[in-house]
Amino acid sequence: MSLSEFEIIQKYFQTADLAVSREEILLGIGDDSAILSLAAEDQLLISTDVLVDSVHFPSDANPEKIATRALAVNLSDLAAMGAEPLCFTLGLVLADASESWLQQFSQGLIKLARQYNIALIGGDLSKGPTTIAIQVHGIAKSGKALRRDAANVGDLIFVTGCLGDGAIALASMGLPSHLGASFQLEQDQPSSNCASYFEQAYFEPQPRIEFALQCGDYISSAIDISDGLIGDIGHICTNSRVGAALNVAEFPYSDSATCCVSTDNLLRAALFGGDDYELCVTVAKHDREKFQARAEEANTRISCIGEITEDRKVRCYSGTGEEIPLNENAYRHFQEGNS
Amino acid sequence: MSLSEFEIIQKYFQTADLAVSREEILLGIGDDSAILSLAAEDQLLISTDVLVDSVHFPSDANPEKIATRALAVNLSDLAAMGAEPLCFTLGLVLADASESWLQQFSQGLIKLARQYNIALIGGDLSKGPTTIAIQVHGIAKSGKALRRDAANVGDLIFVTGCLGDGAIALASMGLPSHLGASFQLEQDQPSSNCASYFEQAYFEPQPRIEFALQCGDYISSAIDISDGLIGDIGHICTNSRVGAALNVAEFPYSDSATCCVSTDNLLRAALFGGDDYELCVTVAKHDREKFQARAEEANTRISCIGEITEDRKVRCYSGTGEEIPLNENAYRHFQEGNS
Repeated sequence: MSLSEFEIIQKYFQTADLAVSREEILLGIGDDSAILSLAAEDQLLISTDVLVDSVHFPSDANPEKIATRALAVNLSDLAAMGAEPLCFTLGLVLADASESWLQQFSQGLIKLARQYNIALIGGDLSKGPTTIAIQVHGIAKSGKALRRDAANVGDLIFVTGCLGDGAIALASMGLPSHLGASFQLEQDQPSSNCASYFEQAYFEPQPRIEFALQCGDYISSAIDISDGLIGDIGHICTNSRVGAALNVAEFPYSDSATCCVSTDNLLRAALFGGDDYELCVTVAKHDREKFQARAEEANTRISCIGEITEDRKVRCYSGTGEEIPLNENAYRHFQEGNS
Repeated sequence: MSLSEFEIIQKYFQTADLAVSREEILLGIGDDSAILSLAAEDQLLISTDVLVDSVHFPSDANPEKIATRALAVNLSDLAAMGAEPLCFTLGLVLADASESWLQQFSQGLIKLARQYNIALIGGDLSKGPTTIAIQVHGIAKSGKALRRDAANVGDLIFVTGCLGDGAIALASMGLPSHLGASFQLEQDQPSSNCASYFEQAYFEPQPRIEFALQCGDYISSAIDISDGLIGDIGHICTNSRVGAALNVAEFPYSDSATCCVSTDNLLRAALFGGDDYELCVTVAKHDREKFQARAEEANTRISCIGEITEDRKVRCYSGTGEEIPLNENAYRHFQEGNS
């Protein structure tokens, strides 16, 4: 690469397109730190997700899509907290990036930064194995942030969008997933429509920001589905000291998912697949109708898939009420042989 | 590694030792985001530095020291802004970390977290080429943050501590630096005292937090010396639209530095070496005595090495007033052949 670190930052990252104007940001890129000033009634939400080449995206993926995915999965954490996106930092380690790669990567960031009104306020650039460390900051009115620890027995469990697409997308792209070699599409090659759907699901997950902001008043607890539903609803249950009964007959799947994998694998993908970046939320029964009306205003598909229980376990039931045994683990990055 | 991601986080990072109690932190590790609430008069300072295995630390270095360096270089950015450390996040990518490595790494974090009263509030853990992405958050009273853009013509230029130790430390440890192969110690092996001094300088830089908090009222602009003095004072000059005249005869060097390298290489290390993590600050002449008194209270060695000028260039002069030509670049991560 012929540009220096400073030149790369100036040309591709310290740009007006990424310095989205927000009154809370007093100083963005260009000093040792950025400076924020928040309104007295606002709280700051902070989350970070790191994406590693060949682990969280294929090496040869389109750089614009890599950027989109990297920022979107971080925004999904803000959505899960009911926060409005404010700003982010970018720690970028690059093995050997060309200007064309940087140009496309930066375009991907710009696209999402504009869409979600989130400003790039700082970062660090270094040479090494390609890694993208993004940290996002959002704001929520005092006491309004959605947490994992406030689900109540009897609350209904909803998910946004479709389940399982994250894991099925990996299989569709011919990439390994932690579900193991037995997790396969029914045909060797998905149709071009399905392949295109899954590629978009993988690289352009839709952070449920609008939904969370609209519906937050009626949500008792929330989490984003990044590790697989069982693991993630498990976090809500552990932190809230409750259990969950899930009706798998109500799980929402995309047309492409039902087209491409067996019924068994649909369920595996939903329960253990991860990478869906949908939200799982709990809602008091008496708020159900108001919640559903707000979700409709936010133009977000929601599905009621179960209920919070007292017995502190996550259990799955078929449509006819029979319990389905759970014998897989949620996504565990440092262990092998989950399947 | 036999522990899952969740088990590693719980055992080594979600510990009371790292959850330093601060009233601003409403929620730390354990949800999709952390939650902060700031006093109305406080501003939030945000900075991030990423350290890559074999680029920013040797692969076989002591994990406790890697952690110390990773957090310290980030704290140095907060010092350069005059901010009080508040909290940090940790994006940790590990190739193959043992429990012993994690235990030592976590001990290094705990040591500095306690020393600087900074809490770990979140992070992300993943498998991949070892990389440490830390983001620090500090607070400063409204309008009190130190910036690069407020140096005035006639201000005196001070640096804390000693210059050049960062680059000399690399040579002392037998590691390559961007100063190139011609940058060598005078002897093949430094004395054990010098070797030990440089190892400490490299792995345990002292973030000048206390100094910055004590002296901030008398500092017009500040930056930390991470890229070499010429590059860093250059940032102050560019952002403040001024120049600088440096008197190299006043540059402070450690005893170990003067013992181990030639006079020429001392100067190269100071001007172009980087990794010193000292502060370079500007002070109005009429504040000089008050500034020096506060620095003494903070027990921090300071040296007056020059003056801010009008001509928008950084120039170096010998003790007898002759200009010294500058023919090297500051640290440029993506370019080779600087020397």
